[in-house]
Amino acid sequence: MDLSYNPRVGAIEASLIRAIAAKKTPDSIDLGLGEPTLLPQQRFIDAAASWAAVNGLRYTVNAGDPALRERIAAHYAYPGMESARNVCITIGSQEAVYVAIKTLLDPATDELLIVTPSFPAYAKIAQLEGVAHRHVDLAADDGFGYDVDRILDALGPSTRMLVIGSPSNPTGRILRDAQARRLAAGLLDRTGPPVWVLQDEIYRELTYIDDAGYLANYYPNTIVANSLSKSNALTGMRLGWLIAPDEPIGQLVKTHSWVTATANTFAQRVAFEIFGEPGALQEQSRWYRERHVLVERALGASGLRYVPIDGAFYACVRLPDGGDSLAAALELVERRGVVAIPGSIFGDTLEGWLRLTWVAPLEQFTEGLSRIAAL
Amino acid sequence: MDLSYNPRVGAIEASLIRAIAAKKTPDSIDLGLGEPTLLPQQRFIDAAASWAAVNGLRYTVNAGDPALRERIAAHYAYPGMESARNVCITIGSQEAVYVAIKTLLDPATDELLIVTPSFPAYAKIAQLEGVAHRHVDLAADDGFGYDVDRILDALGPSTRMLVIGSPSNPTGRILRDAQARRLAAGLLDRTGPPVWVLQDEIYRELTYIDDAGYLANYYPNTIVANSLSKSNALTGMRLGWLIAPDEPIGQLVKTHSWVTATANTFAQRVAFEIFGEPGALQEQSRWYRERHVLVERALGASGLRYVPIDGAFYACVRLPDGGDSLAAALELVERRGVVAIPGSIFGDTLEGWLRLTWVAPLEQFTEGLSRIAAL
Repeated sequence: MDLSYNPRVGAIEASLIRAIAAKKTPDSIDLGLGEPTLLPQQRFIDAAASWAAVNGLRYTVNAGDPALRERIAAHYAYPGMESARNVCITIGSQEAVYVAIKTLLDPATDELLIVTPSFPAYAKIAQLEGVAHRHVDLAADDGFGYDVDRILDALGPSTRMLVIGSPSNPTGRILRDAQARRLAAGLLDRTGPPVWVLQDEIYRELTYIDDAGYLANYYPNTIVANSLSKSNALTGMRLGWLIAPDEPIGQLVKTHSWVTATANTFAQRVAFEIFGEPGALQEQSRWYRERHVLVERALGASGLRYVPIDGAFYACVRLPDGGDSLAAALELVERRGVVAIPGSIFGDTLEGWLRLTWVAPLEQFTEGLSRIAAL
Repeated sequence: MDLSYNPRVGAIEASLIRAIAAKKTPDSIDLGLGEPTLLPQQRFIDAAASWAAVNGLRYTVNAGDPALRERIAAHYAYPGMESARNVCITIGSQEAVYVAIKTLLDPATDELLIVTPSFPAYAKIAQLEGVAHRHVDLAADDGFGYDVDRILDALGPSTRMLVIGSPSNPTGRILRDAQARRLAAGLLDRTGPPVWVLQDEIYRELTYIDDAGYLANYYPNTIVANSLSKSNALTGMRLGWLIAPDEPIGQLVKTHSWVTATANTFAQRVAFEIFGEPGALQEQSRWYRERHVLVERALGASGLRYVPIDGAFYACVRLPDGGDSLAAALELVERRGVVAIPGSIFGDTLEGWLRLTWVAPLEQFTEGLSRIAAL
């Protein structure tokens, strides 16, 4: 007899992103990575270190430091979720999403509906938890915009959670305010079972339009996941949070308390400083806005078809032959010196596309586009 | 129809420790908390802050910084687990234990056997994951020592993991080297299915005997969980790790990658500094060894029956009437100004006892003992 394993863990295949990244050489143009190249604002790290010298680094309560939670709740001020009790500090947005899916869906009966193209974690977490999941594809013809009717039509009799990443990784599209209102109205009018909405807002501070929509403003069963990873170049700080209504928050904190106990007190102090200084959350946004203009210009000049960039730091470009994106990504990394992520890993609807990150130096991005155009 | 929830989360009852802690007043003598009162070694925090100023705080690979993992593996040098690839950096030992139980047991068929008295998290995590669990009680008559025959006899046909916390929270007892050897031999000789052993070594640096035993030295299917929380007063740093053989480590890292992605890069840098300075992991042990002598003296003078303290920073004392420990803890916090944890939450075998932490000032500990003796 062999040693035992959880078959659900074994069934999850290895990450294709990592398989491609592993083929990278020192000379490669890396348009694959999903994190900022800016440095974090050191003054907040130094302030936390000084605070720790006096206070040590003890546990906070499971949900996180109440003073930090109060600042976060007040900053976003979502209706019905304006109090410290509505916030749970997590290990990045990864644990936020994990805890939400694990806590709010019954694996025996409930289905998760994922709006795709999407970050692969939602489906992987559902698989790990034994939760059924389906996806609703946004359409290339529509630039992968958030088609509200299509999303509402896709809800099924056992759908109990809808997950939307907006601003989107990988497409950079954003749910608009009017779309958020219509989606909320449609969800409220529906006769089926009530549905949680999980909106992953991790790219919220990186937007290049004025009318980004947030479901939590309009739909009372919304759970928000976010973090400091992208806004403040703090991917390695692993500081995220859930914002949730009064009813589910206690159950969410309970799951968090048995998975990781509490978030890092040092990281929480860094976040407390950031949320205490007006503008600190948006300080790095300027760099992205300026870069975005140059990136759209380079995309326009490349001759490649691309998705308009509303937010985040990705560009999706169509392969010249619209073919197998995994094969193209392997060709690029193995023989053309470019790391790019195949669209297929974000959903079937993005097959034939590549996801490029544009935080690397602009001339590298432009050179990468040329090599893709020459495929 | 109501909003959906995972019924396994709902079934977990609220923490009794927190219910008691909530009744604490500013004047209470707090013998309840489970964390050091020493400050962490600030030089490591400052070194990490300086490092971040140059390097930023980017993601490490999922398993954690290879250089840190190499130092940890080399430090413990468990047979067959001496390489960086055998280590996964986690969010404290909480996530280490969570990931091990989730990854290595099939909820459909496998049983977890918990050696009690024990920290409640093992049973709670099993409950959250839908994994069957039983416990094997160590005996008060034996001072809750690790009775190897009793543990081996308790293994059943579907037991696929045995979890042992040693040094023990709550009892402070330690599995001795000779016991570890006998337990390993018994597990290897057994005809039933092979069993994982998860040894939680979080109090490893706080030992007051010379022959502490570690299963990983003798039994090849051992998984080790540990952290810097207790050794270096870094509970709030949330830096722990799993050490595991080559076969399961890939599956453990996979689960970790979907639950929390990666551990905090700042915390990993603090750990890298600590593991790079000989003696830094043991620096605070001296304080505990000196305090331990005074604590045993106070216990001897109290007239209360107590468990000999081999390690950790807890003392278990018998209630004068040997009665209901929850009722006694409530009486103590509500009317006698003492926070103590009822033994019953650590397993039925510790009913009639209280767990006291002895990191508070010694005179408070002694006064607390007097009030308990007067119950």
